[in-house]
Amino acid sequence: MNTLIQNVLVHNEVQDILIEKNIIKKIAKHILEDNCNIVNGTDKLAILPFYNTHTHAAMTLMRGYSDDLHVHQWLEKKIWPFEENISEEDVYIGSKLACLEMIKTGTVYYNDMYWFFHGMARAADEMGLRASICAVLIDMFDSETAKQQREVNETIFREAKKYSDRVQFAIGPHAIYTVSEESLRWCSDFANENNVMINIHLSETHHEVEECMKKHGKRPIEYLKDIGFLGPNVIAAHCIWLDDNEIDILKDYEVILSHNPTSNMKLSSGVFPYEKLHKKNIKMTLGTDGCASNNNLDMLEEMKFASCKAKLDSMNPTLMSAEEIFNMATRNGAEYMKINGGVLEEGKVADIVLIDLNNTMMVPRHNIISNLVYSATSSCIDTTICNGKILMENGNVDGEEEIIALASEAAIKLAEKV
Amino acid sequence: MNTLIQNVLVHNEVQDILIEKNIIKKIAKHILEDNCNIVNGTDKLAILPFYNTHTHAAMTLMRGYSDDLHVHQWLEKKIWPFEENISEEDVYIGSKLACLEMIKTGTVYYNDMYWFFHGMARAADEMGLRASICAVLIDMFDSETAKQQREVNETIFREAKKYSDRVQFAIGPHAIYTVSEESLRWCSDFANENNVMINIHLSETHHEVEECMKKHGKRPIEYLKDIGFLGPNVIAAHCIWLDDNEIDILKDYEVILSHNPTSNMKLSSGVFPYEKLHKKNIKMTLGTDGCASNNNLDMLEEMKFASCKAKLDSMNPTLMSAEEIFNMATRNGAEYMKINGGVLEEGKVADIVLIDLNNTMMVPRHNIISNLVYSATSSCIDTTICNGKILMENGNVDGEEEIIALASEAAIKLAEKV
Repeated sequence: MNTLIQNVLVHNEVQDILIEKNIIKKIAKHILEDNCNIVNGTDKLAILPFYNTHTHAAMTLMRGYSDDLHVHQWLEKKIWPFEENISEEDVYIGSKLACLEMIKTGTVYYNDMYWFFHGMARAADEMGLRASICAVLIDMFDSETAKQQREVNETIFREAKKYSDRVQFAIGPHAIYTVSEESLRWCSDFANENNVMINIHLSETHHEVEECMKKHGKRPIEYLKDIGFLGPNVIAAHCIWLDDNEIDILKDYEVILSHNPTSNMKLSSGVFPYEKLHKKNIKMTLGTDGCASNNNLDMLEEMKFASCKAKLDSMNPTLMSAEEIFNMATRNGAEYMKINGGVLEEGKVADIVLIDLNNTMMVPRHNIISNLVYSATSSCIDTTICNGKILMENGNVDGEEEIIALASEAAIKLAEKV
Repeated sequence: MNTLIQNVLVHNEVQDILIEKNIIKKIAKHILEDNCNIVNGTDKLAILPFYNTHTHAAMTLMRGYSDDLHVHQWLEKKIWPFEENISEEDVYIGSKLACLEMIKTGTVYYNDMYWFFHGMARAADEMGLRASICAVLIDMFDSETAKQQREVNETIFREAKKYSDRVQFAIGPHAIYTVSEESLRWCSDFANENNVMINIHLSETHHEVEECMKKHGKRPIEYLKDIGFLGPNVIAAHCIWLDDNEIDILKDYEVILSHNPTSNMKLSSGVFPYEKLHKKNIKMTLGTDGCASNNNLDMLEEMKFASCKAKLDSMNPTLMSAEEIFNMATRNGAEYMKINGGVLEEGKVADIVLIDLNNTMMVPRHNIISNLVYSATSSCIDTTICNGKILMENGNVDGEEEIIALASEAAIKLAEKV
């Protein structure tokens, strides 16, 4: 059945939006359409939803498990021991909790990297979201492991075709300090041959750059360039510790950056060189990172962190305007991830969020985009539609209680095993 | 009628909380009490509410009106022209919108500075919140204005006794660059004689420090010390540009700091020297500043900004732990503002917030305080109780629609007059 959103504020006018299957069929005043599902858009605003370009969704199970620690303690004493007992079923339910949170906060797409691909993919598929999903590839420079990891990825790539088109396989070499040159080259070739995206953590810490200099005599992005890894199908998360030459390389190779400001601050990773990247017109998107380091998946919050941080870092309050970060969090993500959306227009996929304009944080209406970026919290998100399907209406998501109960139980059991 | 909150999680146990008038009468399991108002606390957590120590509440009318500008443009082209036509009635409705937002985000106290004292005080009184309210004092170094401003404050101080005890008059010299030494000395004497608090903006920008050095040959806090202004009744907002000697002075005089991280970032004001202040055990509280610079009054968000910012500034993720910033935002505010609260205990005032533990952002429950600080958004706030009175239950506040309609109208009219 078609869906008709009536009397909603869209592009500064109160209009109707007709959705046919997964496509925005028409945006106009007073659309007449029989036999369709009516959504009351009165006092609501239709906006693009969020496209979150760096997550570890199942790590919602670790929300609040490990905070306020130095990175090595955080990993060695808390994260890794917790992960030791994690099962595909845990990843499935953790990812469902993440999807639920994303739906509640207006996100329809996430770019995910974690263990147990099928647990991750099943969750995204069932919950109705779009996702790029990587089976994380780590070989620790061991050629046997490398071989086995490549085979695993080849198998998963074939198996992944069984999921909805919303769920895309991507190749996920974890980072240059956990993946051999041989495997990095293989990932790049595999991605190019099979037309899939590549997901990598890059230049997140100063230590990573120092180690790369010691080992390869060059900086991380120079190293990746020299081994033929970089290209417009690479999404590089973090990208904090960059020099000018590396920024030029990112530009030349059209690499897509995922900026993760909250995680970078909370883990004390470093300062994202936004001003320089912006001047060079680098492709930038926004991501929350996982709940072990953020500790939520809330893109509204992430936009405010990103913009306020950029302003202070440059001592220039005009930098990263509300409109700019809103585009980074919405349109850029859709465009760079090759989703036929990124704008609310006829013929585009029906990815739509409705905002409650009567929420105090959206009042008054001097500037709606400013209200969204600098004031709104998730309490303003009323309805989330992905690929034409209503995933949340009036704040309610089907099956919410069960997901919360199962995820709580799984998380506590895993903590008890540590 | 007494209020009984049943089966609520408090101090890590499911218990009941009995409120008699404005006081927590009893916290225990299965309290038997006839003829009282029952609040169902199942799957909810009782916590201290937030005490916001720096606001300009009525500036909610300017939310989204002026962003992404250099400070002088922001003030001269936008804020001041908007304020030119503001009336007591505008301030009243803008403050009511602010109170509504604070109730929705779990805040029960705010320390406010703005124009039209009675508009401000009436709003706080009617909305049921606690507030310290200043008639902002600015004399621009003109002795006639100074005299007139002092008389205004003396009059208001007498008139302010008509409001509820929740609403306290405070004296509000705006800043050292807008108020003469004569008036600053007068404020201090007046506050000491009448046992009221003093509210001032202090060392917010580098420019302020430079101008002070030129004019007085010393830094702002040295200057205020030398004129006898500082003491434990002074709440100094911002306090960014401090040297070591000034930090020692703040310690010696037991000055209360209001840290406003989001505003400081968004306006590119500078970096709060948290690590040094913490080492010296300076009295610190948390404030949001006004909606013209933040752009909301959400203390949950402010806690996360404060902590993540402190961690990155020091490159030390152990700094400003979840518990520490939670205490700053709750207990410290209550204690330093001399409210008989700051802890959920029998005999203390019944200032209580109930959190929805089934909100995705509170799941799982490895660490509830971490969830509140690093994950929760205002969608988790279920019930707000101030001084024994329920101001919000299940997310609903009486009269909400009318406040939003009137505030929207007032804001748009003011913008049209510019």
